[in-house]
Amino acid sequence: MRTAICERLGIEFPLFAFSHCRDVVAAVTNAGGFGVLGAIAYSPEQLDTELTWIDERVGGRPYGVDVLVPSKIDASALDVDARLADAIPERHRDFVAHLFSKYGLTAPPSGVSLGPVAGPAARSAASPAAGSADEVGRRVTAAGATGLIDVALKHPIGLIASALGPPPAEMVAQAREAGVPVAALVGTVEHARRQVAAGADLIVAQGTEAGGHTGDISTMVLVPQVVDAVAPVPVLAAGGIASGRQMAAALALGAEGVWCGSVWLTTEEAETAPAVKRKMLAASSLDTVRSRSRTGKPARQLRSAWTEEWDAAQESPGPLGMPLQLLMAEEAMARIGAAAERGEPGAVELANYFVGQVVGQLDQVRPAREVVYEMVSEFADAVERLHRLSG
Amino acid sequence: MRTAICERLGIEFPLFAFSHCRDVVAAVTNAGGFGVLGAIAYSPEQLDTELTWIDERVGGRPYGVDVLVPSKIDASALDVDARLADAIPERHRDFVAHLFSKYGLTAPPSGVSLGPVAGPAARSAASPAAGSADEVGRRVTAAGATGLIDVALKHPIGLIASALGPPPAEMVAQAREAGVPVAALVGTVEHARRQVAAGADLIVAQGTEAGGHTGDISTMVLVPQVVDAVAPVPVLAAGGIASGRQMAAALALGAEGVWCGSVWLTTEEAETAPAVKRKMLAASSLDTVRSRSRTGKPARQLRSAWTEEWDAAQESPGPLGMPLQLLMAEEAMARIGAAAERGEPGAVELANYFVGQVVGQLDQVRPAREVVYEMVSEFADAVERLHRLSG
Repeated sequence: MRTAICERLGIEFPLFAFSHCRDVVAAVTNAGGFGVLGAIAYSPEQLDTELTWIDERVGGRPYGVDVLVPSKIDASALDVDARLADAIPERHRDFVAHLFSKYGLTAPPSGVSLGPVAGPAARSAASPAAGSADEVGRRVTAAGATGLIDVALKHPIGLIASALGPPPAEMVAQAREAGVPVAALVGTVEHARRQVAAGADLIVAQGTEAGGHTGDISTMVLVPQVVDAVAPVPVLAAGGIASGRQMAAALALGAEGVWCGSVWLTTEEAETAPAVKRKMLAASSLDTVRSRSRTGKPARQLRSAWTEEWDAAQESPGPLGMPLQLLMAEEAMARIGAAAERGEPGAVELANYFVGQVVGQLDQVRPAREVVYEMVSEFADAVERLHRLSG
Repeated sequence: MRTAICERLGIEFPLFAFSHCRDVVAAVTNAGGFGVLGAIAYSPEQLDTELTWIDERVGGRPYGVDVLVPSKIDASALDVDARLADAIPERHRDFVAHLFSKYGLTAPPSGVSLGPVAGPAARSAASPAAGSADEVGRRVTAAGATGLIDVALKHPIGLIASALGPPPAEMVAQAREAGVPVAALVGTVEHARRQVAAGADLIVAQGTEAGGHTGDISTMVLVPQVVDAVAPVPVLAAGGIASGRQMAAALALGAEGVWCGSVWLTTEEAETAPAVKRKMLAASSLDTVRSRSRTGKPARQLRSAWTEEWDAAQESPGPLGMPLQLLMAEEAMARIGAAAERGEPGAVELANYFVGQVVGQLDQVRPAREVVYEMVSEFADAVERLHRLSG
């Protein structure tokens, strides 16, 4: 199948794979799709290493990088000299301690730091691979994203995506100079218009059913409205897409391609933590929730004791804003993840990860390459059926 | 376009129009689609009158009837001898009085009763056309629905639909005997399986973006799962469908047709109250909310001062269950609607109606027949584009 975006980016299928896992990015790109690495997981140095690893494996085939630049962030994060962690209130720390005690988590091994936690994100939420709490928090500021963008543009990337808020003018200018198109994720028509005005070359219209940070409007309703609002700027559909039938539906709505995150989380390549992967394979589409408990902004994720406690417990102080909640949650989730891998049942109850409603469709572990081929094949069948029905 | 359901029901396009308005039902049926009258709006005698009116206008073309049979209802409603209205607590009555005072509504004209309020429902919510409060409340019980079913089956209907919960065994038996297929609306895969086990011949899989009573799962995610779960039972897609592109997307997902409600609310024929119609034409897709404030169950509707006050005001006692909240809300909404038509600004703020997220697409008043033809034409274009893209 060939849409204009295929021609423009030099790909066979307009199937974009968002992943924090370099293996998924390379596998999808090599299968004829377009892998996009979620860069927020990395420090600039680590990102450089990851992209070099990908460069060595894709033989010049195109891939992209996604950064997280929220338009509204906690004021304390803007003061890069302040120790971010100090801005977390006592009662929020106490609530985390209460959860650890309530769910019977053993003391974390000494020296535990912010390590890889639950693998690749469904899309733009952060999963810090390393670095101090401060570094992690700052990476989601405009200044922090700039360091990642600088690194990304030194590699032969085919796309740079901004996951929250309009792309910063500097990012657009840098990308333009490097000849790299800029994509932007949106959840409303108004945001889509704003992104195009800010210089986005490609809009990813993401429905509420998506994993990670989402709005309220469903993919079915959002995509045609965004397509009409920003034409002739091409639109990719995101949210609720993990099969060829869903891909065909997205293209029927007027999208030029699809942007998928969740479907890669249960692939062989995904670095998703085993306990969380098992939860995903067992989950139905009713087992996700949009919660502010992991990042400070509404993000769809597996419903777990963590989301239930933060969102509904009487003692909950309520989540902080971004990036403080993200910082606190990721630090706690690193320890929860480690405990879950040690088989501690309370930790397994708490553990979760960003994923969309399509989690109900994910019931086996397969290579990413096989997922691409199956989606493309089912897409062709769906289009053929439609064509037959329409006479 | 011809799907199996077209053959079975004898229609040209698998486009089902749910409406409380007989004019819409007749117009869509006459245009080659399939109109379905929401019967809960009527007493058995009135339903008989409405169906006779339709019979006289559709020249034997097929149409259907939808009843509302909730599986869980307030226990007080089961005692058909109790005066339902007496079961509404004092503080809920007081809160309604507080709202009337806060929004400056003038006293209702004497003798005002439960009259037509805001026109046809997006789907299954009730809009009592007449009758005492008790009668209205009881119509949403199994016993109440039976009276409507008896009347409906005396007309040459082509389908009978059950909007909430599995169709009662008696309804299935009666329909079978009359040779009328039974359709059932569902929001989860589990409910779809249960409906088929209870005897449903056709499943309407309705996503969270739909108007009226909805679940959490989006149409994009729900439809393929339901199609796979109940095959070979045919599935219609509902929620987020008001254009030919969305219709094509629904069929790409595996549906045999589409079930639309919201799109008819702004047609020329619709009996939607003028003040509410104006709100719908101006609304964006962000202007709906799933709220229990009109029926006692989560139902998507226009966000208005009514939903905001019930759902978020400090003084709100919180909505009652079904049918008590429905009873109280419809009585209040009848008076609010009348005041809105008199131009009282507070009443206009409170007024709302059931509608899906597609309300953001509805920006002009057109004949229902024209809506059908435009959807069918855009459907053909979307399929043609897809076919071209897939090479």
